[in-house]
Amino acid sequence: MDGYFERDMPGPDLLPLFAEAERLGVGFYLGYAEQTDAGDRYNAAVLVSPRGEVLGKYRKIHLPGFAEPDAAQAFQNLERRYFQPGDLGFSVWKLLGASIGMCICADRRFCETYRALALRGAELVVLGYNTPHHTPGADQIAPHVDMLAEEHNRLAMRAGAYQNGLWVIATAKAGVEEGIAMIGGSCIIAPSGELVAIAASEDDEVITGRIDLDYSRRYRKVFNLMALRRPEAYGDLVRHHDQHDGSTC
Amino acid sequence: MDGYFERDMPGPDLLPLFAEAERLGVGFYLGYAEQTDAGDRYNAAVLVSPRGEVLGKYRKIHLPGFAEPDAAQAFQNLERRYFQPGDLGFSVWKLLGASIGMCICADRRFCETYRALALRGAELVVLGYNTPHHTPGADQIAPHVDMLAEEHNRLAMRAGAYQNGLWVIATAKAGVEEGIAMIGGSCIIAPSGELVAIAASEDDEVITGRIDLDYSRRYRKVFNLMALRRPEAYGDLVRHHDQHDGSTC
Repeated sequence: MDGYFERDMPGPDLLPLFAEAERLGVGFYLGYAEQTDAGDRYNAAVLVSPRGEVLGKYRKIHLPGFAEPDAAQAFQNLERRYFQPGDLGFSVWKLLGASIGMCICADRRFCETYRALALRGAELVVLGYNTPHHTPGADQIAPHVDMLAEEHNRLAMRAGAYQNGLWVIATAKAGVEEGIAMIGGSCIIAPSGELVAIAASEDDEVITGRIDLDYSRRYRKVFNLMALRRPEAYGDLVRHHDQHDGSTC
Repeated sequence: MDGYFERDMPGPDLLPLFAEAERLGVGFYLGYAEQTDAGDRYNAAVLVSPRGEVLGKYRKIHLPGFAEPDAAQAFQNLERRYFQPGDLGFSVWKLLGASIGMCICADRRFCETYRALALRGAELVVLGYNTPHHTPGADQIAPHVDMLAEEHNRLAMRAGAYQNGLWVIATAKAGVEEGIAMIGGSCIIAPSGELVAIAASEDDEVITGRIDLDYSRRYRKVFNLMALRRPEAYGDLVRHHDQHDGSTC
């Protein structure tokens, strides 16, 4: 299991990636499994400048899945077995003229993620995700629920963009891994909630889009939802409520 | 102006509505302009049982618009001129076998609304709204932005339903009032984010849908996003940030 974790960022396996990105002048977001010197393990991501510098690190806050295997499932998410919840909070960094926040996979389903990043000034949220077509247990709800996986993915991200007036760039694992088909659907979402670009296939694919920060700044001036917030009414959101063992998410 | 405000609920004008609903055994949600004995004014709503009892009252928390008229606009939202922010918080009441929360109009655009109600146990959120096709200032962003009004309406409510595993019943003012055309779009949304029913026209219309609470309870067991929340990471959401005069919302 240790072989899946990175101890340095970039470690020896990743040096060629960092070197090539620097040669091309490309900044990027990279998700990985992190193991610290103390042995702590996080589902993590870094933001890397076009000069190959690691500008910031994020550790995934919302861990889905379970800590114990369930023999009744053909496959399942066991993130809670292999990772600890992120302890770095939500942060924003300046890169390529934009204030950029990061999150990972299940974080994108939580409205708190986008809101916390927007309140820290994010104009763009970058994230990676890895979501199967089939959710274990979905057939216990209604036969068609698995068909909603792609719509749920877009719905949460589009709402996050619209409600906070920010861009979202979402990069999906696609294809079939160990027999599990992923939904793919990498996309770029405008602050209006519009899909600017989306992957057309479930294969390897590169999508591109123009992130016009002037557009989002104009957008926020008119649809300035943030100005209408009433934090004094949100106390319940930060109180601790019953938590379960996990969820298939 | 005083004539638009209710001092009692139900006041004399509304007694026939309450009597007819009681005769038919229909519970309902009703939005109104409230003026208290002390002269305070709220954008308010009540939840009424099939026996005509007022079970609960909500006062709108997120007030859009401005306090001062802008002569450059053909029309504008001046809610901040005529109302105070609601001071009753978010609450949930038991009615017809369901835990029901209320909100009003712009509240539906805020993820905090659904989250606060869900954390208080809401299985169903009822709301009314009154949204024009044209948002003053939208043309300063991009020519097509007004075309997004209906999608933004559905997007925020569908995401609220999905992220909290609850039903939403949204009742819109439709048609043209004082020359202003409304988007209408009254709808019923399932905890999966699916539209169960939606008004087909921009005229007076009744829509119906079956609210299956067993479905939502099964749904929440599998997609138990609430169990994955990390309130310790949400501190920014309840801190006070810069607020402006208002927003066209």
